[in-house]
Amino acid sequence: MGKYSDDSLALHTDLYQINMSEAYWADGMHERKAVFELFFRKLPFGNGFAVFAGLERILDYLKGFRFTDSDLAYLKNEVGYEDDFLAYLKTVRFTGDVYSVKEGELVFQNEPLIRVEAPLVEAQLIETALLNIVNYQTLIATKASRIKQIVQDERVMEFGTRRAQEMDAAIWGTRAAYIGGLEATSNVRAGKKFGIPVAGTHAHSLVQAYKNEYEAFHAYAKRHRDCVFLVDTYDTLKSGVPIAIQVAKELGDKINFLGIRLDSGDIAFLSKEARKMLDAAGFTETEIVVSNDLDEYTILNLKAQGARVDSWGIGTKLITAYDQPALGAVYKIVAIENEHGEMEDTIKISGNAEKVTTPGLKNVYRIIDRENGKSEGDYITMQDEDPASEDHLKMFHPIHTFVSKFVSNFDAVNIHQQVIKKGEVIYENPPLPEIQKYAYSNLGLLWEEYKRSLNPEEYPVDLSQKCWDNKMRNIQEVKEAITELKG
Amino acid sequence: MGKYSDDSLALHTDLYQINMSEAYWADGMHERKAVFELFFRKLPFGNGFAVFAGLERILDYLKGFRFTDSDLAYLKNEVGYEDDFLAYLKTVRFTGDVYSVKEGELVFQNEPLIRVEAPLVEAQLIETALLNIVNYQTLIATKASRIKQIVQDERVMEFGTRRAQEMDAAIWGTRAAYIGGLEATSNVRAGKKFGIPVAGTHAHSLVQAYKNEYEAFHAYAKRHRDCVFLVDTYDTLKSGVPIAIQVAKELGDKINFLGIRLDSGDIAFLSKEARKMLDAAGFTETEIVVSNDLDEYTILNLKAQGARVDSWGIGTKLITAYDQPALGAVYKIVAIENEHGEMEDTIKISGNAEKVTTPGLKNVYRIIDRENGKSEGDYITMQDEDPASEDHLKMFHPIHTFVSKFVSNFDAVNIHQQVIKKGEVIYENPPLPEIQKYAYSNLGLLWEEYKRSLNPEEYPVDLSQKCWDNKMRNIQEVKEAITELKG
Repeated sequence: MGKYSDDSLALHTDLYQINMSEAYWADGMHERKAVFELFFRKLPFGNGFAVFAGLERILDYLKGFRFTDSDLAYLKNEVGYEDDFLAYLKTVRFTGDVYSVKEGELVFQNEPLIRVEAPLVEAQLIETALLNIVNYQTLIATKASRIKQIVQDERVMEFGTRRAQEMDAAIWGTRAAYIGGLEATSNVRAGKKFGIPVAGTHAHSLVQAYKNEYEAFHAYAKRHRDCVFLVDTYDTLKSGVPIAIQVAKELGDKINFLGIRLDSGDIAFLSKEARKMLDAAGFTETEIVVSNDLDEYTILNLKAQGARVDSWGIGTKLITAYDQPALGAVYKIVAIENEHGEMEDTIKISGNAEKVTTPGLKNVYRIIDRENGKSEGDYITMQDEDPASEDHLKMFHPIHTFVSKFVSNFDAVNIHQQVIKKGEVIYENPPLPEIQKYAYSNLGLLWEEYKRSLNPEEYPVDLSQKCWDNKMRNIQEVKEAITELKG
Repeated sequence: MGKYSDDSLALHTDLYQINMSEAYWADGMHERKAVFELFFRKLPFGNGFAVFAGLERILDYLKGFRFTDSDLAYLKNEVGYEDDFLAYLKTVRFTGDVYSVKEGELVFQNEPLIRVEAPLVEAQLIETALLNIVNYQTLIATKASRIKQIVQDERVMEFGTRRAQEMDAAIWGTRAAYIGGLEATSNVRAGKKFGIPVAGTHAHSLVQAYKNEYEAFHAYAKRHRDCVFLVDTYDTLKSGVPIAIQVAKELGDKINFLGIRLDSGDIAFLSKEARKMLDAAGFTETEIVVSNDLDEYTILNLKAQGARVDSWGIGTKLITAYDQPALGAVYKIVAIENEHGEMEDTIKISGNAEKVTTPGLKNVYRIIDRENGKSEGDYITMQDEDPASEDHLKMFHPIHTFVSKFVSNFDAVNIHQQVIKKGEVIYENPPLPEIQKYAYSNLGLLWEEYKRSLNPEEYPVDLSQKCWDNKMRNIQEVKEAITELKG
């Protein structure tokens, strides 16, 4: 441990944010209004959509944003900032406006998920924490949604705490997994904190502590009417399943023999054999729960092999997003107030076309076909445009501009809503089950080709003509400035 | 949020741990002494060793372990536990003994990193949190050590917070990365909390806020004598580097032009060209810092191409352990007190030889050759054995038992030390820089073939003959019990 025992989240930022803040402050730029957008460039897992999560924690973070005395003492004594700047930092709160999509919203590449309009220093200092939160929670909600789509009507539970990347990931990852469609968690703290149903029965150690399954199952049943017995401590088909059946017969009405759990071995084979044994013993309602390094790929394979599974426990592969453990969302400045109080566009150029930012204050509309209720794509406009007032829209690919279509008879739904106004949170987080339902119902907006877990079609996220023209103009200006420099 | 606003880590466990605790308690088993071992079966990243981290947080967690009133209210109202058991849970503290390797210790497959000897319920309830902490922190310390070994004498910094799996991972991952050999972090909170040096200068947004690099660099330099300019906002070689040089020349002695940072593009090419430009301008001491999705593989390649890099900033790939985002450590019961107060072995059988646990109370010795100071391997014994008193040891592979060697003239160093005695922490965490030094110096114990980042030799972790015989006897007993059952 360092010398400073208390902890606040204001310092949960990169040092360069504070360095830049000092430069802005010294230069009198710190209160200029700036607009930043948080977005990712590439959907995770090769999926056709992502499920947004993280807003609840972000609102809490922004509401509580302030440097404590011990933060300031650390910055002075260990990093060497000077008193005048620290006196200013002490006064900093988040006083800006924030527009965000809702948790459970389907989101796509290259569109802002969150827009921050705030004094430059405030917008800058919060970047790191916002990305840290959204990148992980959105990743996990998306992974969970992929898994739930493969599992469909069976029950699916989050069991990953022991393999999560430290404690916050276990807790907030569970919440995100619930948003994406999982039904329960083994993590009791997440259950308490978020009201998520908790699930679990016993581990191998119970059987080992009693040395045999017969006594262990009986001991468990003494205090638990609802019994799911873990049957693979020694030998699933020779010992675990027969003894579970024997104990259930002996106890009769005293317990509900809800299920057995398989945690190792060939799940396809063992589940089919166990199903036969349970059925033959008259336990046709007793379910089979499995848990062993599962994800959407293994579940798809097990289902293809006719595995008889009623309930899936998902651990490592979900909570760490094992096949792609990071979402690459970034946070870019798109406009800033000039010395005359007017907003001006800003742009970041790159040799890579996808990495050039789209400048200016913008809105994102989801274009819904009125006839079939399906989304035609997302349409990014400059803020003064109103696509709802237009009869038909030309939507074209923002990189491959020759790919285009015309849309008519549509609703244009602005996907953002204001969640913070002048620093005050004006958005009430819905209850978590409603967020889960919202995420699920949103899937109905998408054509099947966007929801395929492997090689989906690319959902259109297009720029309006005005937005595209504005971007080109900004690129041109930068190029001219560089040419002048060389000349 | 759920109804329970406070938060304690006692509930940071899987529900089944509490269910089993109830069964033990109801059956009068809860105070039987149990021995659990925490170990992993497979080294991460195909590496030849792992670097242990996590002990500091574990000691804090165990010291503070108790169910709060609101935890108990939740368990009663939402999960349905009964008052008698909850009254007992309210009294539970961690009162056992814990033996652990030190942070920074090199650890290997199938050897206990931590041994817990405690009343059964206590040892059971803490499993999930211990695994959650050790799995992540050890993973990251190991990844950092791999990276540092490739980087060698250059500076390497942790820049990953924005892509970390939520906030704890950013903080504790940074600490683990420091243990593994990184020199600094961008995360200011980690700097404050752990006393890790912080690093960082400015982002693209500074340049965008000023619309051009010239003004941005000047603005930064007004308050920062030490300047590292980010040069890739518009065009690295045509704009960024020339302007950085121009500004540095204009400011002369007023700043220390410490470096430029490259964050995109072809680092090998750009760093070589930038080096030439800096040298030609007389800034031969000005360093080149790079940061763009780096890990040990990309660094190795960049070095092979002659990239001129003085300092490496590592983000996503380290903080998420991108190429293997989970370590699979488990926590298994190996012995339990019987009704006569004697300790008895327990075992978990599996069709997979690697997954059969090694029963009994054991010690792990590192066998150091006295002549060359190198380790011959780790040697797991039953607790009553004393390898130090033997003239020579037979070490044989625990699966492929015909692979064996004799060792003489050695020191046998017990790698564990007691860190908690009857619930009291008796271990003082060394200062973090000492842990880092310890980890580094430990690498000197290993022959080069174990340290190769690709396809290293397997470091021997062997069982003593007595330990092996004991394991075979336990397996035999279980098999006989299953055979009886069938008969």
